[in-house]
Amino acid sequence: MSHDDPTDVTIRSQPSDDGGAPVDPLPSWREGRTKQSIVSFVENVTTEGSPLFVPVPERIATFDNDGTLWCEQPGPVQVYFALDRVRELASQHPDWSTTEPFASLLAGDVDTALAMSTSALLDVVMATHAGMTTEEFGRIVEQWMATARHPDTGELFLDMTYLPMLELLAYLRDHGFKNFIVSGGGVEFVRQWSERVYDVPPEQVIGSSIKTVFAVRDGAPVLLRLPQLVVNNDEDAKPVTINQHIGRRPIAAFGNSVGDQQMLEFTHGGGGARLGVLVLHDDAAREYAYGPALGMTTPRVGAFTQALHEQAEEAGWTVVSMRDDWNRIFASEPLR
Amino acid sequence: MSHDDPTDVTIRSQPSDDGGAPVDPLPSWREGRTKQSIVSFVENVTTEGSPLFVPVPERIATFDNDGTLWCEQPGPVQVYFALDRVRELASQHPDWSTTEPFASLLAGDVDTALAMSTSALLDVVMATHAGMTTEEFGRIVEQWMATARHPDTGELFLDMTYLPMLELLAYLRDHGFKNFIVSGGGVEFVRQWSERVYDVPPEQVIGSSIKTVFAVRDGAPVLLRLPQLVVNNDEDAKPVTINQHIGRRPIAAFGNSVGDQQMLEFTHGGGGARLGVLVLHDDAAREYAYGPALGMTTPRVGAFTQALHEQAEEAGWTVVSMRDDWNRIFASEPLR
Repeated sequence: MSHDDPTDVTIRSQPSDDGGAPVDPLPSWREGRTKQSIVSFVENVTTEGSPLFVPVPERIATFDNDGTLWCEQPGPVQVYFALDRVRELASQHPDWSTTEPFASLLAGDVDTALAMSTSALLDVVMATHAGMTTEEFGRIVEQWMATARHPDTGELFLDMTYLPMLELLAYLRDHGFKNFIVSGGGVEFVRQWSERVYDVPPEQVIGSSIKTVFAVRDGAPVLLRLPQLVVNNDEDAKPVTINQHIGRRPIAAFGNSVGDQQMLEFTHGGGGARLGVLVLHDDAAREYAYGPALGMTTPRVGAFTQALHEQAEEAGWTVVSMRDDWNRIFASEPLR
Repeated sequence: MSHDDPTDVTIRSQPSDDGGAPVDPLPSWREGRTKQSIVSFVENVTTEGSPLFVPVPERIATFDNDGTLWCEQPGPVQVYFALDRVRELASQHPDWSTTEPFASLLAGDVDTALAMSTSALLDVVMATHAGMTTEEFGRIVEQWMATARHPDTGELFLDMTYLPMLELLAYLRDHGFKNFIVSGGGVEFVRQWSERVYDVPPEQVIGSSIKTVFAVRDGAPVLLRLPQLVVNNDEDAKPVTINQHIGRRPIAAFGNSVGDQQMLEFTHGGGGARLGVLVLHDDAAREYAYGPALGMTTPRVGAFTQALHEQAEEAGWTVVSMRDDWNRIFASEPLR
């Protein structure tokens, strides 16, 4: 780890187990202004007697998932899931070979799906995510996740989480924070693995959702998933679902795209110390570099606009450069 | 506390602080079958090595509020709140003196409100609960609660919670359970005092809700409450909102009316040990006695039907007789 940065600060550290040198809770974060802004915030709100001290029950942190906690390129993981479901279900739907959007999708790939209109993509989601009980859907996701791999790296999608963010989740939890995931992805999709991968239990996951109804099926009380969107949990919807679910304004929020703008605004709208963080995908060598903030004109999912970048600077949000601020991105990658 | 009951069992107790006699965590519960069924369930799911052991993260308990955790007679507390709001807002709405349902309500009382059609009552709720930010509404509820008193006892509504249920909440929490309130009342109404009174934080409160939208008002990002019902959290809706919010099936559920039937069914639909509890209001001397289960034909809010009583017996749910199973109902009442 480099300590050459002139903005380097002493990071409050915990003593190691063997009583030796203190252990840095954020070893994948390079020393510098970004890391300092996070650590200073946590120190300010957790140090008794600090004018910015926040009691434990109010230490709420919210995290976007796709592009913030794990990789969402070349396309969001749930789109790959939907694609695989279409292929698997095609034999039960012979009409799909001549019906759009399924015909194109069966002949295409993830780019075909991403190029679709929102309403066509919604048709695909409903055809692949509804028509079963919530417990059946959970098992389908679990089985898929156990073997589904990233198209470029060949790694399991579950291994494509960002190591610095896993460290941050643990660091906040160790300081009395309750971490919530506030995803644009489906809530029942994320909940299947959030506890195992992020140590975030299902009741701390908020996401997009479809309609469910209570029914007694073969004598068993179940919830059936119906093909009707209830919440598309993005942009303006995020503060709304945060309030519905948590009932408190977060004091820290983490995102990476225009879909997270309102969540950060809402978080910063409260009094006292607030932390807003945007992850900038600027590392083409170790992950992907994309979005208008980098002068790239082709829009991509999760794009980070120049306007949002400027808003972040004005508002005092912290922008994380994956290239400069993280010495590792994935656990499998060597330290550099 | 009487130990004469022949069904008396040894209750697992915690040592007292001074190392003396063990302390009963449920002192307001009389010894007997009811208390035994609760304590046995908790022992079964929390004893390591027990065939019915449940890991801590899966120890989810859900509680109805009105009539289960506090008194809902002669009318639900939130109806008194709506009535007081109508009276307070009347000067800003001169038309209310000639417009129904407001005219009747201004001339009437809680019985007038309870006799209204659902749609009329909904009009009243929207006129009194919407049109402000979520934070403004929270302050309105908080101020009202600080002084609002029960019409029969003259006690603060906040002091009309059931002592045995407060003990039960603490007992479960001490055994690794996460307690959720699943109320037909408004989620933002209950959240204002649930942490203080029940030690249940806002993120563990589920309830009825109206639409909210994100807006920037005078430069401040806020959520505005709109007069549109989103969820009436009763009956079939309870399992749906439990799943939306928690993402796990509870292993214990507590209710007192037909509005809780589906929550108990859903809870018991899972495998392993399950606890379903219905509180029967059969104590006219210390609280109220009401509902068809007691042969009373006049329907009242929160009524407990004979059919639900029979279903409880068949399903192995525990029916709590407030008269026989509780030696105290309210903290202010002498032990008897």
